[in-house]
Amino acid sequence: MISELINVGTEILIGDILNTNAKYISKELATIGFNMYYHTTVGDNPNRLKSALELSLSRSDVIILTGGLGPTQDDLTKETLAQLLNVEMVFDQESHDTLLKFFVNSSNVTQNNYKQAYIPRGSTIIPNNNGTAPGILLEKDDKIVILLPGPPREMIPMFEETVLPLLVSKCETKFFSNYYKVASIGESTLEDMLLDLINGQSNPTIATYAKVGDVLLRVTANAKTYEEAKILLDKYDVIIKERLGDNIYANEDISLHEVIANTLIKRELTISIAESCTGGLIVSKLTEIPGISSSLHSGIVCYSNQAKTKFLGVSEDTLSNYGSVSEKTATEMLLGLYEQTKSDITIVTTGIAGPSGGSIEKPVGLVYIGILYKNQSVVEKHQLSGSRERIQLKATNIAFNLIRKTINE
Amino acid sequence: MISELINVGTEILIGDILNTNAKYISKELATIGFNMYYHTTVGDNPNRLKSALELSLSRSDVIILTGGLGPTQDDLTKETLAQLLNVEMVFDQESHDTLLKFFVNSSNVTQNNYKQAYIPRGSTIIPNNNGTAPGILLEKDDKIVILLPGPPREMIPMFEETVLPLLVSKCETKFFSNYYKVASIGESTLEDMLLDLINGQSNPTIATYAKVGDVLLRVTANAKTYEEAKILLDKYDVIIKERLGDNIYANEDISLHEVIANTLIKRELTISIAESCTGGLIVSKLTEIPGISSSLHSGIVCYSNQAKTKFLGVSEDTLSNYGSVSEKTATEMLLGLYEQTKSDITIVTTGIAGPSGGSIEKPVGLVYIGILYKNQSVVEKHQLSGSRERIQLKATNIAFNLIRKTINE
Repeated sequence: MISELINVGTEILIGDILNTNAKYISKELATIGFNMYYHTTVGDNPNRLKSALELSLSRSDVIILTGGLGPTQDDLTKETLAQLLNVEMVFDQESHDTLLKFFVNSSNVTQNNYKQAYIPRGSTIIPNNNGTAPGILLEKDDKIVILLPGPPREMIPMFEETVLPLLVSKCETKFFSNYYKVASIGESTLEDMLLDLINGQSNPTIATYAKVGDVLLRVTANAKTYEEAKILLDKYDVIIKERLGDNIYANEDISLHEVIANTLIKRELTISIAESCTGGLIVSKLTEIPGISSSLHSGIVCYSNQAKTKFLGVSEDTLSNYGSVSEKTATEMLLGLYEQTKSDITIVTTGIAGPSGGSIEKPVGLVYIGILYKNQSVVEKHQLSGSRERIQLKATNIAFNLIRKTINE
Repeated sequence: MISELINVGTEILIGDILNTNAKYISKELATIGFNMYYHTTVGDNPNRLKSALELSLSRSDVIILTGGLGPTQDDLTKETLAQLLNVEMVFDQESHDTLLKFFVNSSNVTQNNYKQAYIPRGSTIIPNNNGTAPGILLEKDDKIVILLPGPPREMIPMFEETVLPLLVSKCETKFFSNYYKVASIGESTLEDMLLDLINGQSNPTIATYAKVGDVLLRVTANAKTYEEAKILLDKYDVIIKERLGDNIYANEDISLHEVIANTLIKRELTISIAESCTGGLIVSKLTEIPGISSSLHSGIVCYSNQAKTKFLGVSEDTLSNYGSVSEKTATEMLLGLYEQTKSDITIVTTGIAGPSGGSIEKPVGLVYIGILYKNQSVVEKHQLSGSRERIQLKATNIAFNLIRKTINE
């Protein structure tokens, strides 16, 4: 079924509030397999509301509106709907009684509040246990129109308790998704790798989402039962795993550093990090994760040559003969860090994040990343591109991916 | 001028992401006096995008679109606009060159990326310094159409640097703003402190913007000339400075750590940081700033007790008698760090970021922050609240503010 959403409220149009209702309702509808084609926000203006509603009735099966159900003069959603569908507004005894119950002291009820006891003829009340404005459900000419109040604390319980069960009862099929979190492949390269599947998609559908440092791939099948969906999803699962291999690091939307931190904690592995060009990004991402204190020994941000010598014992000769950005320095950082910490995993970065500091032999973006685990060390050389921030971020992602591959071997 | 916004992205319609772009752009337009009448969100679907754009061209003067400018097959905004306005897509050498610069290693450029170098004939490029998709500005038949990429970290700088000045230039009166960057006061407290000004506002208007860790206050006057505006702004300037005092650290939208890093570099002061609970956040924020390598000696993330002893010489007795989160430990970290680095400024943090690890005597959120500068040391005790992330962030901000106040004394 084609659905659309109309949010009514000038406060959204002037940027005073974030439209969280749109995200909430959209996600709920997607989960039960409704196609949402449009979101529209209009202010508390009868003509523009009317034209938005008219347009939605011409193109969608289910129209959900939020906002404009309050007691004031500019709350006009119900009246506009009634006018457009050519039904009259009628007094509803139940709404009236509920309203009175809400105002225990009835002297607080204003004339405006009584407006809330009128509903379009033929509509059903959606109870609101957290406010005075009841919701409205109106089915007419094969269209379903649902009116809900704007405040999320009123709208969400009404949606969960009344609207969602109603909509589920109208569905024949449901949507089921597989997720793949992919490291070290950019979004456009990933699309290239799956272009035949993406171009030919209908059911299941494939979508990629660029996240900070990696990409989420979602494959969604539409079917009557989970078993039917599974057949569709499994077929794609084989192809995707074959093409992306061990670049897939999770089957949910989780960040790479969270996966690594949780693996270290679970396997009781200790880690220390010495960072030059990444400047503490690696260690600060690990410390975002609760419980990491049992695994994280030290992070040394040895930005200066003095720090590399003082804390990691990198020799002054190495620094002057090979430079701080060199395989030799990276190796000495690695050995020095291990000597000081005896951590199960030690990992180091040294490079030129830019924008200045580069040369012909050592351009901006040159980064050495080394890891030592179970007496085996590897130092990788990378030439990265982009802004200072991007180079630091890319080097951090490479380091995390190196940790992941090393401890999974 | 009547404006409207079209956000293009299936990820918004299926509720995967919150439409923060709509709030940001709406607030900006409201500030410069543009009327925003509609928000529309459509998916990556050419027909529905076309009908939404067609409708907006029939009723608004300024149409801003976000999203759908990426390199992939379903990024169709530019092409749809060109088709609708009956102009052809032409190759743009500048966009092509910028794209190549972004991908230093051109073997990473996919065929998809080259699509981004084509623009509708007659349009102007809006530079994007944070991604590969340039924005597009097209003025035709008294309409202004502006296309921006979807990711906020790309869109917002483009809006601030190029779009906003352009829109302001279309207005008869102009808007002039004073900015105040305020540390250590939350957004709602700040609003309370200025409530009389905010409630009575018409010209100038006052708006607060919560940033990461601090708040931007903007006072905007609407006038024909700068001189006229200055009279209005000066009156507020006196009141604001009186109330906020030295919590104001800048008169532009710059982050506190950038101000500090630039001060350190300019005054040739060296700094070393030892972080326990902030886990590398302080040092990684400093290393975001180009040129910091001349000032930053070391950052030690001494998450474990062993690290505190090994790298900073904190005594095992102190750790076992007073605990790692104590004034005594903070003081020994400070002295040990100075001993090792001889930096002009040494600063340390130790605390409990949570969610676990707290006790009745030492609850989650207890943080000690110490600084040593010119033989004077201070260790502050703070009780912070919120999630792990918020506690780490607040402690980081307090540390930066402490550095600022110390070196400015």
